[in-house]
Amino acid sequence: MSTQSVDVQWSEEMAFRANVNGHEIILDLPIESGGKDAGPRPKPLLLVALAGCTGMDVISILKKMKVEPEYFNVRAEGNVTEEHPKYFTAIHLVYEFRGKDLPMDKLQRACDLSQERYCGVSETLKKALTITSEIRILD
Amino acid sequence: MSTQSVDVQWSEEMAFRANVNGHEIILDLPIESGGKDAGPRPKPLLLVALAGCTGMDVISILKKMKVEPEYFNVRAEGNVTEEHPKYFTAIHLVYEFRGKDLPMDKLQRACDLSQERYCGVSETLKKALTITSEIRILD
Repeated sequence: MSTQSVDVQWSEEMAFRANVNGHEIILDLPIESGGKDAGPRPKPLLLVALAGCTGMDVISILKKMKVEPEYFNVRAEGNVTEEHPKYFTAIHLVYEFRGKDLPMDKLQRACDLSQERYCGVSETLKKALTITSEIRILD
Repeated sequence: MSTQSVDVQWSEEMAFRANVNGHEIILDLPIESGGKDAGPRPKPLLLVALAGCTGMDVISILKKMKVEPEYFNVRAEGNVTEEHPKYFTAIHLVYEFRGKDLPMDKLQRACDLSQERYCGVSETLKKALTITSEIRILD
């Protein structure tokens, strides 16, 4: 077992500064919620963690397969309950690719390997909610 | 049910750019892992989401209680498995406060309310792993 640790320090009003291995991220609320919109809200960062983790897996697996897309984007769409506590019940991942002669079977294999074997954020969240995914090849 | 969506777009090598409601976050790997260390890794962002979400609850509840600390930091310490997929099995939250005559009962009540009633990231992650917490008043 290894450990990871982050510090998230209050700066003013609703704003916090996160320090993640030497990198700073400002968190804040939008103006209509009492913040100054100096940074993102915390909750969508859970989607960023998921999309980033699986995205890095996929691009790294595709590199080993000698597949390099011109464009690659991971969209994470989460369903959130309406009442407090407002939690995620499901997340859908859309892996979007653009490039010349992209081999669908290898794209599928890379995404499957990430979801089934490598992505630790998916493995964490899968125990709490349903994760679905699809691949789109854009024109 | 409402929805939240983020886009995490590959930029180069292992680096991705996340767009969260108009705010950009760069994700990358450290140099020793094949990245350029242009931003944090994705996985600790899950801890940032948790600490930020509960931190905003706590500071907002304390404000209603007329309690304003001079310093407030939330540390999130996660246990991660050693084998792929490397996932979180437990997270410990340390709520650190400094200030004059801080009322421990109100600090405790604010942290409890966040964990039990308001924090949507805690509620999501609680279904997947164990979350524990403690309060420390610093000198």
